[in-house]
Amino acid sequence: MKRKPGWTLEQAFYISPEIFRDDMAGVFGQSWLFAGHQCQIPQPGDFFVYDMARDSLVILHGMDGVIRALHNVCRHRGTRLCDSGSGHMDKIVCPYHQWRYDTAGTLQATTWMGDDFDPAQFSLHQAQVRNVAGLIYVCLSDTPPDFEQAVADLTRLLEPHGLDNAKIAYSETYRIRGNWKLVIENQRECYHCPAKHKAYAKIQHDTDVHDADKQDMLQARVDGARQKWTAMGLDTSHVRPDSGFSGGWWRANRTPFRSGYVSETMDGQQVAPLMGSFTEADVGNARANTYPNFWLHASCDHVHIVRVIPIDAETTELQADWLVHADAVEGTDYEVDAVIAFSKLVNDEDHDIVMGQARGVGSSRYQPGPLSPVKEEMVDHFLDWYMTKQGTE
Amino acid sequence: MKRKPGWTLEQAFYISPEIFRDDMAGVFGQSWLFAGHQCQIPQPGDFFVYDMARDSLVILHGMDGVIRALHNVCRHRGTRLCDSGSGHMDKIVCPYHQWRYDTAGTLQATTWMGDDFDPAQFSLHQAQVRNVAGLIYVCLSDTPPDFEQAVADLTRLLEPHGLDNAKIAYSETYRIRGNWKLVIENQRECYHCPAKHKAYAKIQHDTDVHDADKQDMLQARVDGARQKWTAMGLDTSHVRPDSGFSGGWWRANRTPFRSGYVSETMDGQQVAPLMGSFTEADVGNARANTYPNFWLHASCDHVHIVRVIPIDAETTELQADWLVHADAVEGTDYEVDAVIAFSKLVNDEDHDIVMGQARGVGSSRYQPGPLSPVKEEMVDHFLDWYMTKQGTE
Amino acid sequence: MKRKPGWTLEQAFYISPEIFRDDMAGVFGQSWLFAGHQCQIPQPGDFFVYDMARDSLVILHGMDGVIRALHNVCRHRGTRLCDSGSGHMDKIVCPYHQWRYDTAGTLQATTWMGDDFDPAQFSLHQAQVRNVAGLIYVCLSDTPPDFEQAVADLTRLLEPHGLDNAKIAYSETYRIRGNWKLVIENQRECYHCPAKHKAYAKIQHDTDVHDADKQDMLQARVDGARQKWTAMGLDTSHVRPDSGFSGGWWRANRTPFRSGYVSETMDGQQVAPLMGSFTEADVGNARANTYPNFWLHASCDHVHIVRVIPIDAETTELQADWLVHADAVEGTDYEVDAVIAFSKLVNDEDHDIVMGQARGVGSSRYQPGPLSPVKEEMVDHFLDWYMTKQGTE
Repeated sequence: MKRKPGWTLEQAFYISPEIFRDDMAGVFGQSWLFAGHQCQIPQPGDFFVYDMARDSLVILHGMDGVIRALHNVCRHRGTRLCDSGSGHMDKIVCPYHQWRYDTAGTLQATTWMGDDFDPAQFSLHQAQVRNVAGLIYVCLSDTPPDFEQAVADLTRLLEPHGLDNAKIAYSETYRIRGNWKLVIENQRECYHCPAKHKAYAKIQHDTDVHDADKQDMLQARVDGARQKWTAMGLDTSHVRPDSGFSGGWWRANRTPFRSGYVSETMDGQQVAPLMGSFTEADVGNARANTYPNFWLHASCDHVHIVRVIPIDAETTELQADWLVHADAVEGTDYEVDAVIAFSKLVNDEDHDIVMGQARGVGSSRYQPGPLSPVKEEMVDHFLDWYMTKQGTE
Repeated sequence: MKRKPGWTLEQAFYISPEIFRDDMAGVFGQSWLFAGHQCQIPQPGDFFVYDMARDSLVILHGMDGVIRALHNVCRHRGTRLCDSGSGHMDKIVCPYHQWRYDTAGTLQATTWMGDDFDPAQFSLHQAQVRNVAGLIYVCLSDTPPDFEQAVADLTRLLEPHGLDNAKIAYSETYRIRGNWKLVIENQRECYHCPAKHKAYAKIQHDTDVHDADKQDMLQARVDGARQKWTAMGLDTSHVRPDSGFSGGWWRANRTPFRSGYVSETMDGQQVAPLMGSFTEADVGNARANTYPNFWLHASCDHVHIVRVIPIDAETTELQADWLVHADAVEGTDYEVDAVIAFSKLVNDEDHDIVMGQARGVGSSRYQPGPLSPVKEEMVDHFLDWYMTKQGTE
Repeated sequence: MKRKPGWTLEQAFYISPEIFRDDMAGVFGQSWLFAGHQCQIPQPGDFFVYDMARDSLVILHGMDGVIRALHNVCRHRGTRLCDSGSGHMDKIVCPYHQWRYDTAGTLQATTWMGDDFDPAQFSLHQAQVRNVAGLIYVCLSDTPPDFEQAVADLTRLLEPHGLDNAKIAYSETYRIRGNWKLVIENQRECYHCPAKHKAYAKIQHDTDVHDADKQDMLQARVDGARQKWTAMGLDTSHVRPDSGFSGGWWRANRTPFRSGYVSETMDGQQVAPLMGSFTEADVGNARANTYPNFWLHASCDHVHIVRVIPIDAETTELQADWLVHADAVEGTDYEVDAVIAFSKLVNDEDHDIVMGQARGVGSSRYQPGPLSPVKEEMVDHFLDWYMTKQGTE
């Protein structure tokens, strides 16, 4: 099935279980996926479990200091080694027959396996893993796509935000009735912002970026920001007012807020201690995406991250995390509600509309529609990437 | 797969997801479907949403007075325009990006779509629609089956009942674990009435119609009714004591109640104001069916309508409505319980048995069984129609 | 798909809906299945319903004294004749149109079926049925596998336990998220017992049977038991300390408990009146399996039976029954908790681990793993039998 450039996908891409399986194998199976945060596993032996469709990985800070992504599947009879969640362990013992692995995934001990049994053949399978400025990425494929430029771009943008010296203030899981691509499409345009996201449009410039009469104002904002942030030692090569991409499947930009605002909060003001190396609040909004499962908005005082977890062709889970400084004390230094209210509102507004769209695209009379060449350019960019990756075109 | 005339269907027709898809496309997609009532949308701008499997239609009383069936799918990115339910609007605005249509479905306004965009190409898709004596019918196909004779028959029967001057006193949705055809088969015979529907058999003659020793009595009832109703100005060409069909896929008959009864209520007496043009209660029971999704029993004082909504191969929803006169005041002129109790009892009795049948026909040892040539003639008639429509035979 | 001997199955056998359908047809459809207990239907007219996937059988003690397994499907329109459960009836009347069968399944009466109708052609379908020492077995196939040796073995073992003079003290249904074969595999090895079943290992010798330094002790236990039980009149040809099979798809062994214990209870002591012909408690533990749906552990005072009911490729229901002597009075002669606590604990421990395994075997990185040639020999034996029966190898 082809895609007409500049138009939405054919119906089957949004509802077919067969295409969903292809998406899992060809897109999620062959991409770098955001799995979780370095700050979840600070000590050797700390781990968390990352579940993705039928797969499950134990993201484990090894006793040797190395972070690994071990397949959560015993090599004996396939039993899941760790339940979902997180914890601490200095070895991995299968709960079924006590096969024991070290934290590098090497099989250390079994009983009753006979003389012909060679434990060296039964280490845990591992996925590729990469720590990007505190973000743990994994790739299920043994031949992962090149990640170097993305890592460089993301690191340059995010290092000052101190994600590696942070803690999770709040997490929430959303279940969306709709294909995962509808979620990404929604995130890749602000054409819907004026009507759907009034709180967002109040503090962000996104809704201005295509208005001819706003260009001078925007340029002045960007120029002023560049000057100030360069003086602060921030990289400003990626400062821009819009949502353009840095590479084929990632972006890492910093955008100025509307004048007078410094954080994605209900009143646009700082609500938690400054993170990372910042000494003042006016650092704009760092934004990052990596297809197919991650986006992030980082303000001076907190970071909001969303991870996309496809469940089936018409169901998607979203895991949202809010990070604050590792030393920030809830109730004293910040209130959870103040940190999360703004993004939760935006999330709710989006999920509502995506679910309405999901019901419509399943109709017998749905047919691909034209994208705005201006306001939905990044949707087109995503669908281009998807079709190449999905392999049908 | 063939069907042996006079026998029930092969198992696959009752459980196969593939055949269900064929049913949706070939039967529901190519038939006139009852969608709702004119009385739900009396004013220009009034609408209700009719959901059918994955499709959804906005049945809209246009500002120009015309009733239309608009596909509930924005031509931009496929978003559902109206949530399920009903309401009032003088234009249709997509909640996602505010594409605006008039109530005739013509695209009136968009933003940011560029110079090459021709709005004339993006009117909402429309289904065929027809108002039959207050019943709104739609057809999803652009080549609908001929409807004229059915419209004439239904109109002649129902016009005196004033469905266009009615209101919905009560609605209820039933979810049945069973294929939609089992629901229709059940509705098309009274072989099961003596044991399952004692309240029904007490006031209706259906259980007598094949008894040799009841023929004189029935003829007398019919003759008397014809004489009386002709004098009242009712069409009596369709007065008959049985459930025979007027055409290949519809019926529109009037049957006399057992002597002493005038309405489908628990005691057979009138419980709400007379509807339509009636000046007395003894008008018998008007009955109509249209395959595949509609039947109706109209008494002097209320109308009971059932709409069949297939969900999947083994799940069916039934929407039951009870209409009374538009001016009838609840609590003063009628009590809801008195209007609905009789039909609710019959519905519950039927759903129970249909679900038991649905479990049985899925057994590995189910095989088609013989229909009573007398009492299940109309089941045979329905299955004949179905097999032709379904296209397998 | 082949299976490597000594290894677990390929993934598809644990998750594929297509293979599940093959399992139902080729394995469950062609095997002798445990359905229930003779003691559930002591009197003519007593019945219980045995549901298995889409099939349902009425296990009926006929008015002529014969136990039959009648397909729970009316020959008219396929309606289920009896809801799930049990009861008493001297004839079978279909609830839909009152077709009436006698308790032998012969159609006795219909109405309105016309002159050409031959009732003799419409007896209820029957499955094969066999009463084995109080256990009712059925086979859905008209060409059942040879059952004689299994019947002989099971009868010799179980007759002294008096299952035909018992009653059900308690029943429980478990729903497991996992393929039915994972349940059987789990039941066929005690490799997991030391860590998972501490209460079980305390009173049973299973964990000792492969230890070189326990062989003399075990032999002494077996020799002593044989001597004692022979004197009691028990057959001792099948006394053994391990879980070895008597035939290709069944076993019927008696094993001694650890010294000092006489029943599968929390303290290993008798908690209900002796069953059957026993005059003392020290009769060891009778154990029986028949593939694919049955196992049993019988102590002197109670019997614990598990029936496996596959629901879909990744869901299995287990029906567990606990039998005690027919004359035992609850509250006086026994407490239900004391009878069931031990087996319930073992069941819970097993279900937990099987569900963890089920999640793991669905992972994209699951691959067959090596079985312990010592401790998982019986798993290998089961998988051998399964692959032959399943027909793929």
